[in-house]
Amino acid sequence: MIFSLKILGNNSAIPAHERHPTSQLLMLDNRYVLIDCGEGAQIQLSRFNIRPGRIKTVLISHLHGDHYFGLIGLISSMHLFSRRSKLTIYAPPELEEILRIQLRASETALAFPLEFIPLTHGGNKQIFEDEQITIHAFPLDHGIRCYGFLIKEKPKQHRINKEKLPDGILIQEILQLKRGEDVLHEDGSIKYAAKDYTLPPRPSRSYAYCSDTRYDERLVPIIRGADLLYHEATFGNDMADRAIVTHHSTAAQAATIAKMAGVKKLILGHYSTRYKDPTPLLNEAREIFPETYLTSEGDTFELKA
Amino acid sequence: MIFSLKILGNNSAIPAHERHPTSQLLMLDNRYVLIDCGEGAQIQLSRFNIRPGRIKTVLISHLHGDHYFGLIGLISSMHLFSRRSKLTIYAPPELEEILRIQLRASETALAFPLEFIPLTHGGNKQIFEDEQITIHAFPLDHGIRCYGFLIKEKPKQHRINKEKLPDGILIQEILQLKRGEDVLHEDGSIKYAAKDYTLPPRPSRSYAYCSDTRYDERLVPIIRGADLLYHEATFGNDMADRAIVTHHSTAAQAATIAKMAGVKKLILGHYSTRYKDPTPLLNEAREIFPETYLTSEGDTFELKA
Repeated sequence: MIFSLKILGNNSAIPAHERHPTSQLLMLDNRYVLIDCGEGAQIQLSRFNIRPGRIKTVLISHLHGDHYFGLIGLISSMHLFSRRSKLTIYAPPELEEILRIQLRASETALAFPLEFIPLTHGGNKQIFEDEQITIHAFPLDHGIRCYGFLIKEKPKQHRINKEKLPDGILIQEILQLKRGEDVLHEDGSIKYAAKDYTLPPRPSRSYAYCSDTRYDERLVPIIRGADLLYHEATFGNDMADRAIVTHHSTAAQAATIAKMAGVKKLILGHYSTRYKDPTPLLNEAREIFPETYLTSEGDTFELKA
Repeated sequence: MIFSLKILGNNSAIPAHERHPTSQLLMLDNRYVLIDCGEGAQIQLSRFNIRPGRIKTVLISHLHGDHYFGLIGLISSMHLFSRRSKLTIYAPPELEEILRIQLRASETALAFPLEFIPLTHGGNKQIFEDEQITIHAFPLDHGIRCYGFLIKEKPKQHRINKEKLPDGILIQEILQLKRGEDVLHEDGSIKYAAKDYTLPPRPSRSYAYCSDTRYDERLVPIIRGADLLYHEATFGNDMADRAIVTHHSTAAQAATIAKMAGVKKLILGHYSTRYKDPTPLLNEAREIFPETYLTSEGDTFELKA
C-alpha cells in the first residue's frame, strides 16, 4: 500500500509568505484522507494535480478557521464536479451546521451523500476502520475542542518464504501460514510450522498528526513509535511564553515529544507568521531530535513499506 | 480622488487554471470597497501587497460560495491583525448568521465592530452615501437573491478658472462660484457670474458591477453611461443555451448590454472553467462592443478624473 503524506498548507492562523493555512493529504493507495482543510486547500489540490474525487474521508482537528475554512469550498466544487460517492467528515459537532447553513443559502442539494461524524469524546478512541487502516482521535490541549489523529496500518500477514515452500502445499495451508498459524496434521502434530516457512510480517506503518496543541506529555503513549509525527511548531524558543498563552508549542517542545515517544521522524509546521524563514525552528528542534524536518507546501513524505 | 479597480479573482464557480473565484477591490482614495469575496481573496490581497485594514465596506452580490467563501477568512485575519475600525457588510440576510456561527465556533469575540446591512429590496436603491460617493444596489436575474452595484462619485464642484479670477475676490465668493452660483451685489445685480469665472465640474465617475446574471435589459437604464462596466461573461456563443439554464450570460450578451447602456468601457470575467483561454469570449464581445477587455488577476482599471 502506498502510504504517503502531501503538505497542502503549513502556515498558522494568517496566510502569509505565500504559505497557506493548515491542510494535509494522506494518500493510502486510492483512499485519500484529507487532514484539516484551511482556506485555499482546493486550490492547492488543483495546483498539485490531485483529484478531489479520491478523497473519501476528511478529518478536521478543530474549528479555528485556519483548519477548516477551505472545506465548504471543496465540498461545493465536489458537487459541481458531479461527485456521487459518499464523503465522510469527522469533526467537532458545530461544523455540521456551519456546512449545512451555507449549502442552504445557495439552495444546493448535494449530488453526493455527506456523512458527518461528530467528535466529542475524551481519551484516545478508534473512530474509523477498514480492511487496511484504523484511525484514532485523541484530545489536544488547545483551549477549544481539538483532536489529534493517528492513522495506522492494520497488522499485516506473515510473508511466505517461497524458496522454502514444499511441493504439494495447499492454498488454504498457505493462507494459514500467512496468518502466522502452524498447519497441523489430523492427529494434531505439526505439519508445517509457520516459523519455518514464513518471514515476520512487515511492520505496520503509522502517521500521527498533532495539530494545534500546547506541550502535552499525555500524547507520548498514544503516538509511541509512529513512523512519522507531525507536531505543530508555531513558535521558537524566543516565544515560549507566548506558546503557553496561545495554546501552541515551540519547535523544541515538538522535538521533546518526538524524542519521548520514540518516533522515527518528526515534521514541523503551523509556523507563526513572524517566521518568514522557519529554519531557526528546525535548528532548535534538531538539537533535541535530529530526525526533524520542516514541511513546505507540495512536500511529500513517503512511508516505505 | 483615486478611482481604481483591482481584480482579485475572475473565475466562475470552481477555481481553475490558476484563477480564483470572484473578488474585486475598488480603491477610492483610502476608502476601499471590496466587491464579492471568493475563497482566497485574502491571499490575493497579500499577493498584491494590499492592506486589508483599508477595507471599510464589503458588498456581497449573492450567496453562491464562489462570491463569499473567502469573507470569513478575511474577517478572521482582520481580527488577528487587531483591527479596531468598523467593517460594514452589505449582503443577502442569510450571510450574517453564516458569519456569526463560525465566529461562535472558534469562540472569537471580534476586536472590531462588524456591521451587517441585509439586502432584501426590489428595484434600484441607494444603500450607501458619504461625502464622495453613493452606492446603489439593484436585483440581478440569477435564480437566488442577487444584486448588482453601482458606485458613483457625487456631483463635483465647478472648477475655478484662476486666470480670470479678479483681484480682491473673497473666499466665500469663490466658494459660491464653485457651487455654480452667481455672486450678487446687495441690490441683486450680478457681481461675478459663475459662467465667467469657472469651468464646468468634472464629470462624476461611476463603476457598475453586474455579478452573476442572465441577459437582462432592465439593467440598461440603471447603469447608463457608466465609465466602467463589469458584466459577467461565463460562456461563449457556443453555450448560449447553457447560459439561460444556469442564469448566466454570454460575452456577447454582456457586450449588448454595454452597448445599449452607452458605457465607456466593458470588462469581462467569471469565465467558465471550460475556457482555459478566454480570448474567444473577448472576440465575440468586441464584435458588438469594441471597447471590451478581459480581466486578469492583478489587473488594475483606473478611472481618470
